[in-house]
Amino acid sequence: MTTVLIANGPNLGRLGSREPEKYGSTSFDALSQLCRGWADEILGATADVRQTDDESELVGWMHQAVDAGTPVILNPAAFTHYSYALRDACAMVTAASLPLIEIHLTNPHAREEFRHTSVISGIATGTIAGFGTDSYRLAITALAGRLG
Amino acid sequence: MTTVLIANGPNLGRLGSREPEKYGSTSFDALSQLCRGWADEILGATADVRQTDDESELVGWMHQAVDAGTPVILNPAAFTHYSYALRDACAMVTAASLPLIEIHLTNPHAREEFRHTSVISGIATGTIAGFGTDSYRLAITALAGRLG
Amino acid sequence: MTTVLIANGPNLGRLGSREPEKYGSTSFDALSQLCRGWADEILGATADVRQTDDESELVGWMHQAVDAGTPVILNPAAFTHYSYALRDACAMVTAASLPLIEIHLTNPHAREEFRHTSVISGIATGTIAGFGTDSYRLAITALAGRLG
Amino acid sequence: MTTVLIANGPNLGRLGSREPEKYGSTSFDALSQLCRGWADEILGATADVRQTDDESELVGWMHQAVDAGTPVILNPAAFTHYSYALRDACAMVTAASLPLIEIHLTNPHAREEFRHTSVISGIATGTIAGFGTDSYRLAITALAGRLG
Amino acid sequence: MTTVLIANGPNLGRLGSREPEKYGSTSFDALSQLCRGWADEILGATADVRQTDDESELVGWMHQAVDAGTPVILNPAAFTHYSYALRDACAMVTAASLPLIEIHLTNPHAREEFRHTSVISGIATGTIAGFGTDSYRLAITALAGRLG
Amino acid sequence: MTTVLIANGPNLGRLGSREPEKYGSTSFDALSQLCRGWADEILGATADVRQTDDESELVGWMHQAVDAGTPVILNPAAFTHYSYALRDACAMVTAASLPLIEIHLTNPHAREEFRHTSVISGIATGTIAGFGTDSYRLAITALAGRLG
Amino acid sequence: MTTVLIANGPNLGRLGSREPEKYGSTSFDALSQLCRGWADEILGATADVRQTDDESELVGWMHQAVDAGTPVILNPAAFTHYSYALRDACAMVTAASLPLIEIHLTNPHAREEFRHTSVISGIATGTIAGFGTDSYRLAITALAGRLG
Amino acid sequence: MTTVLIANGPNLGRLGSREPEKYGSTSFDALSQLCRGWADEILGATADVRQTDDESELVGWMHQAVDAGTPVILNPAAFTHYSYALRDACAMVTAASLPLIEIHLTNPHAREEFRHTSVISGIATGTIAGFGTDSYRLAITALAGRLG
Amino acid sequence: MTTVLIANGPNLGRLGSREPEKYGSTSFDALSQLCRGWADEILGATADVRQTDDESELVGWMHQAVDAGTPVILNPAAFTHYSYALRDACAMVTAASLPLIEIHLTNPHAREEFRHTSVISGIATGTIAGFGTDSYRLAITALAGRLG
Amino acid sequence: MTTVLIANGPNLGRLGSREPEKYGSTSFDALSQLCRGWADEILGATADVRQTDDESELVGWMHQAVDAGTPVILNPAAFTHYSYALRDACAMVTAASLPLIEIHLTNPHAREEFRHTSVISGIATGTIAGFGTDSYRLAITALAGRLG
Amino acid sequence: MTTVLIANGPNLGRLGSREPEKYGSTSFDALSQLCRGWADEILGATADVRQTDDESELVGWMHQAVDAGTPVILNPAAFTHYSYALRDACAMVTAASLPLIEIHLTNPHAREEFRHTSVISGIATGTIAGFGTDSYRLAITALAGRLG
Amino acid sequence: MTTVLIANGPNLGRLGSREPEKYGSTSFDALSQLCRGWADEILGATADVRQTDDESELVGWMHQAVDAGTPVILNPAAFTHYSYALRDACAMVTAASLPLIEIHLTNPHAREEFRHTSVISGIATGTIAGFGTDSYRLAITALAGRLG
Repeated sequence: MTTVLIANGPNLGRLGSREPEKYGSTSFDALSQLCRGWADEILGATADVRQTDDESELVGWMHQAVDAGTPVILNPAAFTHYSYALRDACAMVTAASLPLIEIHLTNPHAREEFRHTSVISGIATGTIAGFGTDSYRLAITALAGRLG
Repeated sequence: MTTVLIANGPNLGRLGSREPEKYGSTSFDALSQLCRGWADEILGATADVRQTDDESELVGWMHQAVDAGTPVILNPAAFTHYSYALRDACAMVTAASLPLIEIHLTNPHAREEFRHTSVISGIATGTIAGFGTDSYRLAITALAGRLG
Repeated sequence: MTTVLIANGPNLGRLGSREPEKYGSTSFDALSQLCRGWADEILGATADVRQTDDESELVGWMHQAVDAGTPVILNPAAFTHYSYALRDACAMVTAASLPLIEIHLTNPHAREEFRHTSVISGIATGTIAGFGTDSYRLAITALAGRLG
Repeated sequence: MTTVLIANGPNLGRLGSREPEKYGSTSFDALSQLCRGWADEILGATADVRQTDDESELVGWMHQAVDAGTPVILNPAAFTHYSYALRDACAMVTAASLPLIEIHLTNPHAREEFRHTSVISGIATGTIAGFGTDSYRLAITALAGRLG
Repeated sequence: MTTVLIANGPNLGRLGSREPEKYGSTSFDALSQLCRGWADEILGATADVRQTDDESELVGWMHQAVDAGTPVILNPAAFTHYSYALRDACAMVTAASLPLIEIHLTNPHAREEFRHTSVISGIATGTIAGFGTDSYRLAITALAGRLG
Repeated sequence: MTTVLIANGPNLGRLGSREPEKYGSTSFDALSQLCRGWADEILGATADVRQTDDESELVGWMHQAVDAGTPVILNPAAFTHYSYALRDACAMVTAASLPLIEIHLTNPHAREEFRHTSVISGIATGTIAGFGTDSYRLAITALAGRLG
Repeated sequence: MTTVLIANGPNLGRLGSREPEKYGSTSFDALSQLCRGWADEILGATADVRQTDDESELVGWMHQAVDAGTPVILNPAAFTHYSYALRDACAMVTAASLPLIEIHLTNPHAREEFRHTSVISGIATGTIAGFGTDSYRLAITALAGRLG
Repeated sequence: MTTVLIANGPNLGRLGSREPEKYGSTSFDALSQLCRGWADEILGATADVRQTDDESELVGWMHQAVDAGTPVILNPAAFTHYSYALRDACAMVTAASLPLIEIHLTNPHAREEFRHTSVISGIATGTIAGFGTDSYRLAITALAGRLG
Repeated sequence: MTTVLIANGPNLGRLGSREPEKYGSTSFDALSQLCRGWADEILGATADVRQTDDESELVGWMHQAVDAGTPVILNPAAFTHYSYALRDACAMVTAASLPLIEIHLTNPHAREEFRHTSVISGIATGTIAGFGTDSYRLAITALAGRLG
Repeated sequence: MTTVLIANGPNLGRLGSREPEKYGSTSFDALSQLCRGWADEILGATADVRQTDDESELVGWMHQAVDAGTPVILNPAAFTHYSYALRDACAMVTAASLPLIEIHLTNPHAREEFRHTSVISGIATGTIAGFGTDSYRLAITALAGRLG
Repeated sequence: MTTVLIANGPNLGRLGSREPEKYGSTSFDALSQLCRGWADEILGATADVRQTDDESELVGWMHQAVDAGTPVILNPAAFTHYSYALRDACAMVTAASLPLIEIHLTNPHAREEFRHTSVISGIATGTIAGFGTDSYRLAITALAGRLG
Repeated sequence: MTTVLIANGPNLGRLGSREPEKYGSTSFDALSQLCRGWADEILGATADVRQTDDESELVGWMHQAVDAGTPVILNPAAFTHYSYALRDACAMVTAASLPLIEIHLTNPHAREEFRHTSVISGIATGTIAGFGTDSYRLAITALAGRLG
């Protein structure tokens, strides 16, 4: 593996400015930088960090990951709770024997009722939630565990 | 009628490579070719076969169908289960007295619980599910029955 | 294949006189005739068209289909919503690798809530609903697709 | 007691040929023979083994059991999940202080969700499930325990 | 009107012997006699009193009532709670502008939870429940009110 | 018995002017007159016909009925669906071995979902629904059957 | 305040032609014109009226509103019922102490069951529904009340 | 129109003293004054502002509105969640082609679960919620839009 | 504190005569006397014991308690299960830092399902249920514990 | 009676240190001391105050209470919500005509949803909740009421 | 096989004294003796009869059964309804191809609603319920059927 | 920090032998060894690895962690789904500002329905699931992130 896709869903581009008491004060750019450093250090790989508010773009990235054989770290954000289109795309990733790790900055179970349901978890390799930006470092570490 | 719109939702562009034991080994291009042949042969019409992972694009195609008076064959894929935006757009098609046929490659009721709910069926003209790529041929045949 | 069983459930013998604005004005006899013509023309087979209001008779027909290796087109009518006895009998048909196609004249999802549940769909080969008597022609066409 | 009614519901006449990996390879005739032997040996009684796919026939047999004072072993098969008509008839058996034992070849709780609900259990004397044809021998043994 | 159909569902033939503290000690024959007397006296009509444990027979009687233009008094007994086949047949009666009155000997709402649901009430002309055999006299009186 | 209480709940005073296609064109005064006539004729009793929009008043009338030993005919109107205060009061009537008959002008099961639930039926002697103003005559007739 | 964003969700661009008996005959362009007039007159502000069928575009507009400090009037259309991505974006608007008013042309509670649920209302400043195009004028008036 | 009825449900007479951080510090008298001013100014009409904790009184006011042809602005307060008696009375207002606008001071969807259900909305002309006392001004403005 | 309000909801005035095996044989007057004695003895206060079948009256008493700073002992009887109007009024009591103790004569959880839900408990200071008339003495004792 | 068992469930040994703003600052030892004093003073009995985190130990204590004829005050803590084993043991206490009073320090209905369900209440003599450590004193007082 | 484990869950040690009209008057010791006799006679094996109120002990016994290759007869008592820990332990027994038979003295479906759910049945070999102590003899007989 | 508690719930002592295709072939001892190595290497701390099938023991360990100020890694196994006693104990850990990380070997959302509910997640610091024994390494890494 030389590349890992770190895909981020809707509103995550606003990190740092969005309710910092909940999501932390690290901006999305700073987080991306952190991820690239962690991927290099922990995996010896390039982190391809992306963000989109667009469901179809996220779906397309999963297709690319399948074609390129890239493992995926996915923070589906609000799509977690309803995007079966994303679920179907993610299922192709794991069906291709590639790891797909679902992560969340916050702990969804400590928040509103609707956040307790994930349509992604059922087909993910594993889930990491509640560690703030460190959820990303842990997911990269998890990839190292599976792939190393 | 000289054209029939055959609109396909998210992840269907991956046909052939996506879990072939479930969805068959025919690629989306091959399926499109088949549809065009069937439309010509059965309806004497041109099949305008499209695919998108983008909900808004699919919604827009419904608007175009209304404006052009084109009957619609729709495989809503994962949007089946939650896209009320698509439902509202489809409702305009049938409100314009144009047939809109919902199709599925697989039988959703033989799969996961969440696939048992369709937000589209309630406003579709009819539904055809479970016949693989032949679902498309049957839908074209159904149009012939209604329009011929 | 030389015969196809077209089995019809409760109240379908009343076609033509029963709420014609919903179920059409074709009588059950006329529909049977149509089916026999379609089967001959599309499948080169004999359509054995039957109707019963009796659940056990319908169950028995499924048993006969298994023994004779006959494909089945089934309009379960109101049994759709509760007859697990019929479901179990239908499951034997598909377990014997014979196609069983569930059809409906109307679109159940555009009607009362209780019609949105089918205990048959989960074990059917495929489903066709909403095309009036043409649902039968489509099912025969679907058999041709699978068997031809 | 000289007779025990062993009543069997829909599709059980197909035993042996129906999904043998689930229901075993013993035919219904062979099972009947076994039951008659067990009844003779364990109870010193005649087993009146019957099967029907017809709900009303099963209901009628319960009425006969009440009139004749015959204990009942009942495999309600798919009627288990919805036949309140059968439930009401069974309730007359136990109201007449006659034992009525509900049996199942397989363990319904290890199968589809809808099989987890029994409308019969609430009024049965007891339930035995999951032992294949041996469920019948156990029920006869249970009668011996109650009646002997 | 010269005839009124008084149709009775499963287990009602056992009246008098079945849990008399719940259903009363009048036998079904005695009840039939009473009904014929009431119909004659109140309606000047013949009461055609029938009972069956067979769903399809009950369905068939509804078809006959439609064909003969006969008003119907129906005690659906346990079918009340699940027989959509009977519901569809009853719907044809009222669609033919004939009254169909649903009656019950006992008050289903004072009994088990499952008896609180009626799949018949939604399409009945009216409902009368809880008056024992007098429910029949009241239904005949109701017909007089509507038809007289 | 010399008096029967005919108690009517909220909005029933508006009969005749309120959605006459649903509730009929008879005014509440005319209905009261009819009831008094029927009570006299059928029961040889005085009908004490009252109407109130006030839950507590209705509750109080039940208390009076208990104290006076008066049988009750009750049209609870919208209170049917939520007034447990009224239910508790009605339960005192039947606990005092006085009949309490729940009536409705229309058939609640043919209307909105919330009208399918009655908190009164479970403790009523019996229920009569769907016969328009004739529901009152039938209830009086039912009292005659129980009391005569 | 010099600008107010009036954001419109899927299918609203079809106003005037879409089921006019439900949504009125005013076209979206005409409505935009009306809004600009009302904003000028009532708020002395510029109305920035936009429409999109694209969830991510709508999400992006919320981000822009936060950055620009613009109050928002939002007709989420079908997204009302499932777009948690939009909800999260809207939550940022109100978290930034900017008003966000949810509006609907029709009264969702007088329509299909699924329209009774809004995932947006919980984080909106307020809601206005059922007044046709006048819902927009009222929302502008509401802004005046809060901001003036 | 010369009068508009502004009817207020239980506990609203306590405005100003009741949890002012939620309901604002304006007293009910001050609010009434404001409403009278707004009605005069915006509608050229007299606002008849009333409050009651009594369900039957509120029901009676709806009857009066029907008789007098008065449009209604209704803050049903806690009755919103269960008073079907009030719902039925309100339905008479709109059935008489008079507007009935449901308003709330706070946004019920941002509060306890039980406040998310309204039994009134389904038959209201429209709904306005979450604007504090300004909800009243907006409702008056809405009437102007409909009636002017 | 010199006064404590002991407020009683619908049907409690009938104590002693109402199902004495459930509610005991103490009349409401006797209970009032007992309460006055207990309040004097335990709290050195006057018990203001009231009963009403009228929801609005009960609501009004809560308002008075707030104004007078009186602690409240409330037996909401059947209003427990649905009166959100009463709940809102009670919430004002506790919001004013006055204790409000919900009491019941019987144990609602040992009775019908609908009695298992209390809309009052969530905002009460505490709850005491199942001790017959002694529930009142315990509540007075509880006040002593909080206030003494 | 010379002894009363005051049994406390999981985590209650941590009183005083556990979230004191919710559970108070009294330690479990101090509470035990208080209980012993109250039992002596109010009941003239010895309080046997125990605490365990172990479900089976709590179950065993109930058995001892039955054998010794000891009344029980039980704070089941978290077991309240799921321990049917404890429920069955408690049912033996009340079946032996011994009082069993369920108490809670806090008001479970003012807390998380899962705390609103008690599997114990249905078989308890009575329930006291929300009075902090005073709940124990009230329960002892309640015993005095029943036993004295 | 030389040994069979007969494991009994909470409160079963109280047999004989616990509600004898429900559970019978046989003490647990007498039952154990009976089981040892039956095991010897029917299986030629030693019955290792144990009882515990402790979930973890029961779990441990399942582990021992796996290690020793002992078939298991389990009366999970109240753990039936919630102990997923026990379920997981039982699943190890059947995963080791050892029979595990779930038994009950009474018929859970004829009792409270919560007893209708078993978290054990789904992974048991079979279930026997409702025969009092004879359920144990039947389970031993069932083992003979499987193992003999 | 010098110690981290790694607490394991029911059946986890059987690792290696328990369904190795699901839980892996590493024994619990080997896993403990791994954890001690990881804790030393990653945290420079001692891992105190424990396992119990006993709910109360697990609860007690949480109390000890609070007293000792030890961070907790918890694999609650089957207790995840119902042990509110454990939840309350865990809540004390996080209330003491100590991290508590919930981990699972497998992905519960890819398994049976009942495993989709966690009563622990809502009060955990974060959750890690689906990485086999590597879930433990990741949790230790997460602690390093929070504490380092």
